Amino acid sequence: MVILLDAMGGDNAPDATIKGAVKAINQIESEVVLIGNEEIINQKVKEFYGKNAISEISPRLKIHHTLETIEMEDIPTQAIKHKKDSSMVVGFNMLKEGKGDVFISAGNSGALLTGATLLVGRIKGVDRPALAGILPAYKSRLVLMDCGANTNCKPINLLQFAQMSSIYLQTTLGVKSPRVGLLNIGTEETKGNELTKESYQLLKEKSKELGVNFIGNVEGREAFLGGVDIIVTDGFTGNIFLKAVEGLGKFVKRTLSESLKKNLLSKLAAVPSLPAINRFAKTVDYKEYGGALFLGVKKPVVKAHGSSDEKLFEFTIKQAEQFVKNKAVEKLTEEFSKQREQNIEESETTNS
Amino acid sequence: MVILLDAMGGDNAPDATIKGAVKAINQIESEVVLIGNEEIINQKVKEFYGKNAISEISPRLKIHHTLETIEMEDIPTQAIKHKKDSSMVVGFNMLKEGKGDVFISAGNSGALLTGATLLVGRIKGVDRPALAGILPAYKSRLVLMDCGANTNCKPINLLQFAQMSSIYLQTTLGVKSPRVGLLNIGTEETKGNELTKESYQLLKEKSKELGVNFIGNVEGREAFLGGVDIIVTDGFTGNIFLKAVEGLGKFVKRTLSESLKKNLLSKLAAVPSLPAINRFAKTVDYKEYGGALFLGVKKPVVKAHGSSDEKLFEFTIKQAEQFVKNKAVEKLTEEFSKQREQNIEESETTNS
Repeated sequence: MVILLDAMGGDNAPDATIKGAVKAINQIESEVVLIGNEEIINQKVKEFYGKNAISEISPRLKIHHTLETIEMEDIPTQAIKHKKDSSMVVGFNMLKEGKGDVFISAGNSGALLTGATLLVGRIKGVDRPALAGILPAYKSRLVLMDCGANTNCKPINLLQFAQMSSIYLQTTLGVKSPRVGLLNIGTEETKGNELTKESYQLLKEKSKELGVNFIGNVEGREAFLGGVDIIVTDGFTGNIFLKAVEGLGKFVKRTLSESLKKNLLSKLAAVPSLPAINRFAKTVDYKEYGGALFLGVKKPVVKAHGSSDEKLFEFTIKQAEQFVKNKAVEKLTEEFSKQREQNIEESETTNS
Repeated sequence: MVILLDAMGGDNAPDATIKGAVKAINQIESEVVLIGNEEIINQKVKEFYGKNAISEISPRLKIHHTLETIEMEDIPTQAIKHKKDSSMVVGFNMLKEGKGDVFISAGNSGALLTGATLLVGRIKGVDRPALAGILPAYKSRLVLMDCGANTNCKPINLLQFAQMSSIYLQTTLGVKSPRVGLLNIGTEETKGNELTKESYQLLKEKSKELGVNFIGNVEGREAFLGGVDIIVTDGFTGNIFLKAVEGLGKFVKRTLSESLKKNLLSKLAAVPSLPAINRFAKTVDYKEYGGALFLGVKKPVVKAHGSSDEKLFEFTIKQAEQFVKNKAVEKLTEEFSKQREQNIEESETTNS
């Protein structure tokens, strides 16, 4: 198995990508190919580890040399078209050509989504691929889809997000019949904007035959208490939701650590309870939940958090290996082509 | 000063409204009129305090008898039209007739918004009144407008939300030039959906002349760190944001308390640091931030949280007195009529 890693993507690249790969390599079976500027990478390897080549650390660590990098300011479609030798475009092409089993990048989100769709291609039957992110929840996890790939969506897109994420949870986490909720501002079916109202009806009508366990509208205030496994929404609303949660998480961590340091007494008193507090902080830290899988394209593409540090890259690399092992994308493709054939048969029966 | 309280509104009414009013009364100067079923209220007063009438607790506590209640399931416009003797409709009419200075209700949100607009009336120049909620932020507070009153909005509405909430923060909290951000999924001005893109342009163009300190797009992940005072958005997105924050807040509180109780050692160890942890929990608890003011109507209307307990009612009542004292609504009305006159003059000059 080969994991392709965009070594130049993200706010902390290439330091964090290199260190993350080195940390992960002895915990996985796959090869990791760092795609990026070989000279820069080797220089960093020398600096961090005193080695002349990354392969001295592990024979399963490799470099694929590229010169260009897609920057955060680049316009996605132009960057994908014109920066042919960028780490991202090369990564997508290697994935497409079977030179790797999964591609991870923390680079420009728009370019990543454009590249995944244009270079890797959509699964037949999927109108809009989208990002499925994993968030912490009470004694469980929560999948949010779409996390931000499609600003404008139609009800059919949300129905497909429900299908895709259900298959994903079943195959990767072994959740038998994942409960799917529609993100909304009230639980009644008449609540919300046009998109949520229409999507509710479509989900209600089609879920059963598509094997989706639709439980109705879900509000954010109940989302983290363990009553729902998947939340579907358009990419704009999903991204607002995701970032609100991240923002409050940051605030919580900062305030908690300052509260405990406020005076010497509580500082001293806090020391013995630090393990418990750290356990808590880990639970609510979205960074502990790794990258988002871009569901709906023909090969596994993982969007790592833009501000990923070495720890998060380590985690995301391990997670990517699991995605490949669990054959999430193969199973998704299979299920979709099955449903597509059924639909074609049905429409032929109707027409004849 | 007279505070009108819908005694029958909210999940925990009338117990929580009565207890909240009793707790608040010695901390405020105003009268509090509990609007609701006198028999039920007196029975509760007897049960809770062993008194025959609420006036025995304080001469500033009164009851205005009504028979009906607007329920959570009621259709807003119909309820406001037909339940003439409901605590909510009676409250609005008393406010309109000058029998009170502010009206607080934790009842049916839709009915409250319909009632405020239909019975109390919009301030001239305001197209859409909306809910301005206060959220915790790092060493500060954050105003979110609209929290959920208007599911569909136009750019002009968001501009007016920016104006209204700026005047509100200046007059009630003394913030000189509140920084206004537009809630979006990226900071660049080209990011977002149609509404945010158009609103960005309108805010950029008009803010200065309207005295609004517009600082651009704001993402949720930076919202709580103290860099912004006001976030404007449509009511759908605002409500998604608000409830995501509430949901994570609930999860944080539950996980933290369980983490600390997990084993005897951390339980014992946690005891001395409890004051710090409680201080922290208070900081991130949205309930510490009281009700949302319905800005854009002619008199002060406060939407208390639907699941308010006695403590939150106590807080909201004290907050409502401050709203009245600070003349937030009068100042808003004045400012809007000024700008309206200027616009009329300008258009006359242009036409002549």
